[in-house]
Amino acid sequence: MTKAGDKVKITTKDETIEGILMPNEETDSVIMKLNNGYNIGIEKDEVKRIEKVGEGNALIISHAKKIKKSPKLPNITILHTGGTIASKVDYKTGAVYSSFKPEDLLGMFPELEEIANFDSKLISNMWSDDLRFKHFEVIAKEIEKEVKKGVDGIIIGIGTDNLAVASAALAFIIEETPIPIILVGAQRSSDRGSSDAAMNLICAAEFIAKTDFAGVAICMHEKMDDKTSAIMPACKTAKLHSSRRDAFKVVNDSIIARINYEIKKIDFLKEYPKKDRKNLIIKPKMEEKVALLKIHINMFPEQFEFFKGYKGLVIEGTGLGHTPGQVPNDICSIHKKIYPAIKSVIDSGCIVVMTTQCLFGRVQMHVYSKGTDLANLGVVSGEDMLPNTALVKLSWLLGNYEGKEEIKRLIQINLRGEINPRIEPAQYVE
Amino acid sequence: MTKAGDKVKITTKDETIEGILMPNEETDSVIMKLNNGYNIGIEKDEVKRIEKVGEGNALIISHAKKIKKSPKLPNITILHTGGTIASKVDYKTGAVYSSFKPEDLLGMFPELEEIANFDSKLISNMWSDDLRFKHFEVIAKEIEKEVKKGVDGIIIGIGTDNLAVASAALAFIIEETPIPIILVGAQRSSDRGSSDAAMNLICAAEFIAKTDFAGVAICMHEKMDDKTSAIMPACKTAKLHSSRRDAFKVVNDSIIARINYEIKKIDFLKEYPKKDRKNLIIKPKMEEKVALLKIHINMFPEQFEFFKGYKGLVIEGTGLGHTPGQVPNDICSIHKKIYPAIKSVIDSGCIVVMTTQCLFGRVQMHVYSKGTDLANLGVVSGEDMLPNTALVKLSWLLGNYEGKEEIKRLIQINLRGEINPRIEPAQYVE
Repeated sequence: MTKAGDKVKITTKDETIEGILMPNEETDSVIMKLNNGYNIGIEKDEVKRIEKVGEGNALIISHAKKIKKSPKLPNITILHTGGTIASKVDYKTGAVYSSFKPEDLLGMFPELEEIANFDSKLISNMWSDDLRFKHFEVIAKEIEKEVKKGVDGIIIGIGTDNLAVASAALAFIIEETPIPIILVGAQRSSDRGSSDAAMNLICAAEFIAKTDFAGVAICMHEKMDDKTSAIMPACKTAKLHSSRRDAFKVVNDSIIARINYEIKKIDFLKEYPKKDRKNLIIKPKMEEKVALLKIHINMFPEQFEFFKGYKGLVIEGTGLGHTPGQVPNDICSIHKKIYPAIKSVIDSGCIVVMTTQCLFGRVQMHVYSKGTDLANLGVVSGEDMLPNTALVKLSWLLGNYEGKEEIKRLIQINLRGEINPRIEPAQYVE
Repeated sequence: MTKAGDKVKITTKDETIEGILMPNEETDSVIMKLNNGYNIGIEKDEVKRIEKVGEGNALIISHAKKIKKSPKLPNITILHTGGTIASKVDYKTGAVYSSFKPEDLLGMFPELEEIANFDSKLISNMWSDDLRFKHFEVIAKEIEKEVKKGVDGIIIGIGTDNLAVASAALAFIIEETPIPIILVGAQRSSDRGSSDAAMNLICAAEFIAKTDFAGVAICMHEKMDDKTSAIMPACKTAKLHSSRRDAFKVVNDSIIARINYEIKKIDFLKEYPKKDRKNLIIKPKMEEKVALLKIHINMFPEQFEFFKGYKGLVIEGTGLGHTPGQVPNDICSIHKKIYPAIKSVIDSGCIVVMTTQCLFGRVQMHVYSKGTDLANLGVVSGEDMLPNTALVKLSWLLGNYEGKEEIKRLIQINLRGEINPRIEPAQYVE
């Protein structure tokens, strides 16, 4: 008989897989931890044979190291919010869960001690999927406390699913900062051999300790290998792979700096905000009555009308920023009702901003008649903003500024690197 | 005084731009056609000077060529549905509009005549943004007519915004085909010097004329240069740039073939369906009561409950396929209501399928406790399907198959190349 924790070999009709059998409350599948630290679920019907090949205790890791401080080193505070970077495997369900004591990280990555003195604080322990706007206010207040203490930099450990959304939100909330605030995450939990947690964290610490950068940015793997991490712009980055360590990609922009993990060399690739500001200016209010709506091929007017009474709506349109709604000689009567539905949302007082579900590229409301039609309804261009960035910017503008026309003006101009200047004509030849 | 059609030089505070002044009904901006064929809108407030530098008539193109046929060449039918590949500039609004007579394309691209005999038919003239499920039935019926006539291949000219969605829908509808059906589009209208229309069309025709491929696929630029077009898989392709000619990218798969435009060399890069089937099998029914919902950071339970009574809902979740809804020690009460809201949609009879807004990578419902929670609610994994592909597949399954359990089984297995086999363990180390 095999039991949870055993090293086993599972044979299905297609393959033979080795790993550690995980405890599992589900009755119709077996869950197995592979040698690379990843879990896999196999339906019981598909399992031909389970063979025990050894006892498995390899997953227990040592935690909690006493923290020593050196007056020669800079001081960095790590604010933990949960996520894979601070997660372990739950032997009860076999799934990864987020459970982390602040001391653990230093115990797991002793290399950090040579870079800086670390303080570590658990703000909350949650999946980034559960983040809401009001959590950013909590994080901002903690940042404020650390800046007042005089730390040289802050690392925010956060789940990757909404890491890029959080970085954009914090970039708007933190209008000015005298120190660097770097968000890091991991695609593999820290007790896995293949975890990317250590490298992202160490590179972020190196970057804070050795450069004069001051601002909000992301530090994640640049490529699939473990050679370089990239400092990515807070408002121009998206998670574009569900599992790979190089999931984070800069969209419509370029990385700020590259950190060579082996030789700890840092190269800046573009202009960046420097440590020349003395004050921290925080504007943490966010409007809750905002949403994002992705256009798909089967839109009904009701899907727009739902947002009547909202303060803001970001549409993730097709192509250059389109929705259905223009009917030349159609076999369908639904489209006729879509522009009026969008109009009714705008008439209810909602600011409607167009972005593109292509993610890459820019919204152009004056290339096709579809775009001009939408502009005439009152839809505002989100320029080359990522849809999620436009969403947090709109919520933030509505929370901190008065007057619809002013907010419509501000949504279309660059405040935090979220919008590039309109492309020079020559670049249209692509 | 300058007038529409004049070659002008416009000076703003940032730059000087040359092009052709376009007629424009808007009073607060000038629209200008750049030398590369692209239009740009400039707010009048920003214009410092408009200077006439010449008369401009360069945009008029010659159309409508008499069609000659050769018995030695294969017969290809081009079915036009509208879109940029068949569009011209509307001098009334300055925007690009879709207006095209079937003969025009051959007049514009005489090179086509050496590849095949062409018939050309205008099915409809619409933006692909206005496509709905029922249009695919119309297109399928036209395909059926052409196959019965005995043509050797079909090219479908279509707008790029929903080209990839249309290709996925047609791939499901056309269960078996004896001939190739290739979708082509253009990111620049055909009367522009920089148009990509000619190359995509000519490469599609070459591919049909010179290979034994039979199935539905896409032919678009592979890169930003004009050297190669790619044949891309119908269900695994997305438009990932709003304007670039290399906007179409294969996601979680690879291109089927590469066509060298200069030397007309075709290389297959993977296995492909061949001309070994005799019959055309069409299943054109699509269920209308389906939708796609992209998760964002400010989801409210109502945004899920809206879909109660729908037959199918594809969720574009975060990361490996997550939504908000798991609250450990939260400052927010909304999350507690989100899993019950998802449950109420499922209880209403709706099949809920999870995909990832990362686009790249796979949904994994058994890695994090969040995923297992959602699976326990009854959410079905969309594996590594693109969200839009999952949407059309779900609509198609609901239209053509009986029984919820059977549809839930079929949505998770590969029917048309839309799902890759689960990745081998070794590949998890990324």
